Amino acid sequence: MPEIHNEKDTVADTITACCLIIGNEVLSGRTKDANLGWLAERLTNMGIRMSEARVIPDVEDVIINAVNEAREKYTYVFTTGGIGPTHDDITSLCVAKAFGVEIHRNPEAKALLEAYIPAKRLNEARLKMADVPVGSTLIHNPVSKAPGFQMGNVYVMAGVPSIMRAMFDEMAPTLTGGAKMESIAVASYLPEGAVAAPLGDIQDAHPAVEIGSYPFFRAGHFGCTLISRGTDMAELEVVAEEVRQMIISLGGEPIDEDLITPADADNSKDY
Amino acid sequence: MPEIHNEKDTVADTITACCLIIGNEVLSGRTKDANLGWLAERLTNMGIRMSEARVIPDVEDVIINAVNEAREKYTYVFTTGGIGPTHDDITSLCVAKAFGVEIHRNPEAKALLEAYIPAKRLNEARLKMADVPVGSTLIHNPVSKAPGFQMGNVYVMAGVPSIMRAMFDEMAPTLTGGAKMESIAVASYLPEGAVAAPLGDIQDAHPAVEIGSYPFFRAGHFGCTLISRGTDMAELEVVAEEVRQMIISLGGEPIDEDLITPADADNSKDY
Repeated sequence: MPEIHNEKDTVADTITACCLIIGNEVLSGRTKDANLGWLAERLTNMGIRMSEARVIPDVEDVIINAVNEAREKYTYVFTTGGIGPTHDDITSLCVAKAFGVEIHRNPEAKALLEAYIPAKRLNEARLKMADVPVGSTLIHNPVSKAPGFQMGNVYVMAGVPSIMRAMFDEMAPTLTGGAKMESIAVASYLPEGAVAAPLGDIQDAHPAVEIGSYPFFRAGHFGCTLISRGTDMAELEVVAEEVRQMIISLGGEPIDEDLITPADADNSKDY
Repeated sequence: MPEIHNEKDTVADTITACCLIIGNEVLSGRTKDANLGWLAERLTNMGIRMSEARVIPDVEDVIINAVNEAREKYTYVFTTGGIGPTHDDITSLCVAKAFGVEIHRNPEAKALLEAYIPAKRLNEARLKMADVPVGSTLIHNPVSKAPGFQMGNVYVMAGVPSIMRAMFDEMAPTLTGGAKMESIAVASYLPEGAVAAPLGDIQDAHPAVEIGSYPFFRAGHFGCTLISRGTDMAELEVVAEEVRQMIISLGGEPIDEDLITPADADNSKDY
């Protein structure tokens, strides 16, 4: 069995996160998730490494197990979806069950809803949005008031992207970031298959740096962007320079920019 | 602890699937995944229920464990990403290790690459794309030749969306679909909080139907689309009619169309 080069374990002091995207509608393809990519970018910029994401259905056992697995394994767990007023909104109850606590009507959350929703419309279903696990802390919702909550290292947010983002920004200052993942991108019009072997050598020489290769197709030419990621900018500069020299030695021209876009990636068809 | 209404277990004859999106670049937010939503829609249309999706990093142990958990639990497992020529492409090796088999250079895959890539460019890195687990079957790649493969119930595909889609379409006829999930959508300009209680009653009366509520904001008005999903169209018609009558009884006007769009959902801020 050949060696696998890029096997990296999470170092002990890395701040990690898992995102749980909760909702049948995402799994059925009806709703296209717009939260994962946003959270990934935001967390990366805060020095929090998203180590896993799961999309799971509105099914009690599945949610409870996923929450318990994730909160054990990662520094932070972020959930989106399932905290509205209808019968299919079961996330808050499931998180309470995961922690083995009761759910209660939070007075502050109730007051927020009372101030926002006219009394004649504030029925039991809407009040359900004030029900959170005992021991949890509210996450404020500047968009539509009904709050999310934090329970231990689990942060429960709405599924609607504008509300989720507003909730995240509300509580983000309370999160502890780690060393930020920096990156340097060097592109060239050499295809992946041309750079693969020398790139693997560079990777082997710098195990603390994570080198990724992302193919693209632009202006009629194939190429790839080689991204070096890590927390030590000085080492990244060394690696990036080795990548540039490698490209030159293969007859290519290194370009210090981040060429790839999703549209490019989609057109990629060479190695 | 209150009852959770919408707890549904997968019925025994349901055909299920898990998607594993493999790649550090998706978790870092650099690449926005474009495969999950496409696969979800395609599988739903084939009567295959995507029950879970995971985004995982290019880390050997994580990939091996995820593949083994998923292949045990679901009818089908689809992976995307990590089968190119560079050092960070480790999916094929990890799937071999998950199944406890060796990797070998598949003669047919090698011939495909030889026919597509000029001999002077067909280096060892590119030939690595012909290495698949012993006992696997190739999944053809009409876009750029380097194949994916099927090993047991695990289908390994490229991460580049155009190639993944082409591979999926190549092998889709070999998949066995189950009873197709049908759906009927009834929208109205009543907010979620107004319909929640009677909708929960309808859900309770029809446990075989999965009723979801999706809020929207359109033309200055809040509302929600109520989707009934299930395999028995006759029962769905009954449920949809109950939903329409419920809307009328609350002073709303039922609209038999599927109003929600992601842009609408993003603007939703009422209950």
